[in-house]
Amino acid sequence: MKFFIILTCFILMTAFIAPTIPQNKKQNLTKESTANKLTGLLLNYDCTDFFFNNPPDQINGQVLDEQIALFARAGVSVLLCNTNAQRTNYASEAFESFWQSYDPDGPDDQPFLADMLPERRANYRRMIASMRALHLQGVDYPARVIQRCREHQIAPWISLRMNDIHDNDRINHPIHGTFWREHPQYWRVSDRKIDYYDRALDYAHPEVRARYQSLIEETLARYDVDGLELDFMREPYLFKPGHELAGGKILTEWLQLVHQLVKNAEKKRNHPIKIGVRVPANPITAQNLGLNVTEWVQLGLVDLVVVTPRWATMDTNLPMQIWKQLLSPYRVTLAGGLEIREQSYPDGPARLTTPDVAFGAAAATLYNGADVIYLFNYFPSMTKNGWTLNQYINALQTMCSLDRLVMQPRRHLLTFRDVFAPGEATDYPLPATGKRLLFRLPTGPKPVGRLVIAKIGIKTGDEMGEKTIELLVNSTRCEYIEKQGAVYIYKIPEGVVQDGVQLLEVVSSGEELVTVERVEIEVGGV
Amino acid sequence: MKFFIILTCFILMTAFIAPTIPQNKKQNLTKESTANKLTGLLLNYDCTDFFFNNPPDQINGQVLDEQIALFARAGVSVLLCNTNAQRTNYASEAFESFWQSYDPDGPDDQPFLADMLPERRANYRRMIASMRALHLQGVDYPARVIQRCREHQIAPWISLRMNDIHDNDRINHPIHGTFWREHPQYWRVSDRKIDYYDRALDYAHPEVRARYQSLIEETLARYDVDGLELDFMREPYLFKPGHELAGGKILTEWLQLVHQLVKNAEKKRNHPIKIGVRVPANPITAQNLGLNVTEWVQLGLVDLVVVTPRWATMDTNLPMQIWKQLLSPYRVTLAGGLEIREQSYPDGPARLTTPDVAFGAAAATLYNGADVIYLFNYFPSMTKNGWTLNQYINALQTMCSLDRLVMQPRRHLLTFRDVFAPGEATDYPLPATGKRLLFRLPTGPKPVGRLVIAKIGIKTGDEMGEKTIELLVNSTRCEYIEKQGAVYIYKIPEGVVQDGVQLLEVVSSGEELVTVERVEIEVGGV
Repeated sequence: MKFFIILTCFILMTAFIAPTIPQNKKQNLTKESTANKLTGLLLNYDCTDFFFNNPPDQINGQVLDEQIALFARAGVSVLLCNTNAQRTNYASEAFESFWQSYDPDGPDDQPFLADMLPERRANYRRMIASMRALHLQGVDYPARVIQRCREHQIAPWISLRMNDIHDNDRINHPIHGTFWREHPQYWRVSDRKIDYYDRALDYAHPEVRARYQSLIEETLARYDVDGLELDFMREPYLFKPGHELAGGKILTEWLQLVHQLVKNAEKKRNHPIKIGVRVPANPITAQNLGLNVTEWVQLGLVDLVVVTPRWATMDTNLPMQIWKQLLSPYRVTLAGGLEIREQSYPDGPARLTTPDVAFGAAAATLYNGADVIYLFNYFPSMTKNGWTLNQYINALQTMCSLDRLVMQPRRHLLTFRDVFAPGEATDYPLPATGKRLLFRLPTGPKPVGRLVIAKIGIKTGDEMGEKTIELLVNSTRCEYIEKQGAVYIYKIPEGVVQDGVQLLEVVSSGEELVTVERVEIEVGGV
Repeated sequence: MKFFIILTCFILMTAFIAPTIPQNKKQNLTKESTANKLTGLLLNYDCTDFFFNNPPDQINGQVLDEQIALFARAGVSVLLCNTNAQRTNYASEAFESFWQSYDPDGPDDQPFLADMLPERRANYRRMIASMRALHLQGVDYPARVIQRCREHQIAPWISLRMNDIHDNDRINHPIHGTFWREHPQYWRVSDRKIDYYDRALDYAHPEVRARYQSLIEETLARYDVDGLELDFMREPYLFKPGHELAGGKILTEWLQLVHQLVKNAEKKRNHPIKIGVRVPANPITAQNLGLNVTEWVQLGLVDLVVVTPRWATMDTNLPMQIWKQLLSPYRVTLAGGLEIREQSYPDGPARLTTPDVAFGAAAATLYNGADVIYLFNYFPSMTKNGWTLNQYINALQTMCSLDRLVMQPRRHLLTFRDVFAPGEATDYPLPATGKRLLFRLPTGPKPVGRLVIAKIGIKTGDEMGEKTIELLVNSTRCEYIEKQGAVYIYKIPEGVVQDGVQLLEVVSSGEELVTVERVEIEVGGV
């Protein structure tokens, strides 16, 4: 039940977010250089969290300033301020704002809110009322964020969600823009609704690209940013199924136009403006979706590449090495993206992550080649959902560098990747059933002088007597410690732990097959 | 039964093979250039086929010359002559030869042959007798191959298998070298035998590297080649499980030594000598196995990269685009490897491929970014096992270029990749069970004016009435033609077919789940 509540929070919490980049030279073949790279910690702040958590009668510019001050205290070096889903959280002329057509004095069942679940209406109208209230006070949210960031030496970026389709099963939900609702012919699949992503917009239509171009132009004209992020992870399904490769050519061409818009804005602003993209973890999948990331980098269109899971779980096995190899000849920052949820397998139990699990993922991601960590859905409002404020601040400060991370206790969970191109076969490592099961778990730099524990979670009902499940790590048998419920615990000797990744071999010493549902390595404190 | 016979042939046929490369400049960051690239067709010829197929009383230099002449007629531009497994097919001083310790006058149960299945002995002793006979005639097999290649303007290479372990379940099998048999402590797993690859040699041991170094030195000293291939696909498991990343560092260092040996040989021979590697299809898997291919290329150690399945099946979905992106900044030839077997899923029915299926795979591989096609296990002896001589010659000639390939009828089968690092989760697309199943099938350039047919093979017993399984390709419903047994056949309209890849969506229109076992697209003749 607690889990259900947390998930419900997430449905609200994880509505939206955006990323940041630092520099702007034409990309060229070059020896790998750290000269232009972003450092510190990148944090995407979605377009709703601030407004969900500050009611209309309390919201004002100063509260927002305090929010940015908190990010500064936490060590955020680049704030990627997300300003849109299908609507904007400021009074845009390109998109409708969230509160456009909303009657603040009308009832909960006014037409604008009618297609929402009744129990969701109060929260939602409070949120948009907060946006409206701030606007009516004369505070331009993105401009104020940018101003405060500059005062705190945080690089201000705006992150635009390129295809957000939250609540797309309810066509008249107030979250949607008129453009989306009135043009089902632009949906990537318009003649049915089977898949969550069917109603994403199809970028093969010039009208779709024009719509997002107008938002980009408005953003560059109105807001003096250090960078513009194109967030293709809301959602990465941008073309009609089976038309992704042809679509990718259209998208690359369009990005050249966007790049030119940014170059024009640089001249006007008289300082560099970077371009970032948020893309799926696997480079082959990205390409199969029409997201030709390496080509964009080769063409000099992109300064920041954020490799990330979508939402379901932190991906503790981001293939950073291959991304680093792909991008190392070019001037680009490679960021590894962390999500706030953790889950071992699709539809399995999920929970809000804890700092030690985030540290594990961050340490492995940096060790494997990321230049920086990029956080998504790491809202300050987490401090109302399980994290203390100190934990939040300390956690973000810690994720600024691998040196700090490795001083902390950390946990490495085996998770899965949650984005595949249509028709790609999945490769979920869990759950797994057999008598001898092997798992690879990235763990970052080899811990020295630390207690290292492995935990193997067995499907309830599959538990056997003690010591009937053996664990080998990197071909060496580990000492069995105890069983906690259906979780078998082992100690991994220090000489056995390897740099980078551990190979866990779970062996059922009896005749029965065993189903493993969770694999974890814990590195104790210094 | 026929299938079993073919497989048995394969067990004999596929004992061994080797690849070729053309140029030798220090690799540097450079704009992609075709200047140094291999062209035409690369063919690996294993160390046993010639001897299995020419009995001792008929073998001689002239028969070998005719073999090379056949490759020349077939359009082979680079012949990668494999000379070893654990032993050599010539009188080596570095390794034992295949016939060393063999008593040609002894009985079938002589100690040398005792650990073989009795029914295999006659064939095997005939083969090694052929090697011995050629040697006793004064013909040095590799030297003769090289000489004849040069006369035919074929670039001669030698391909060395870096860790062959055929028949490793029989420790005293005559195929093994004394080194392997007498040093189980050098096996990557020496305390058990669970996996086929457990008894591969562990390159972390200096003695193992020294052994292969001696063979490389002998090869370079005795044979005037245009290139040396290190065939890491027999077998790609070179380190103790869990020690692959540490092993990869050792291997890269060792390759720098090998590179220096080749550079020294270049000075002596006064012409370039290229270095090639044969590696697994997926670059992440390769790296997880300790095969840091991109690093080797970046360091200038390698001139040819052959991306390939291992053996189980042609891989019709080689990720060439990502390899091209990884390697395009460097001077290196990227070859796509074809195997001779075809299979839809592990342990499923397998067969000797036919030219039209090879053409499908070759067309997709070249279209997706390979510079050239590389054939493995495409023995001339196939003409005794289903292919006519004309088919063989025409097929090889056709695979020399995409222009020729697209003029031919071709078939695209959905297959799988057959190499994973220990602990990696598999991603086999077939068999698949559900009510709505999606498959991606690479098909190369869009056929124009050709009949294009899709075939969906259903698990026997799952067949339903006609028209109860619908097929959409790239989101468009296709015309059902007929059912042949458990195979449903559809016509794909010309306007529906895309460049590069087709997305097939199989929909059970009834309530039942359906299991798909085979997916195929046929492109008809011009």
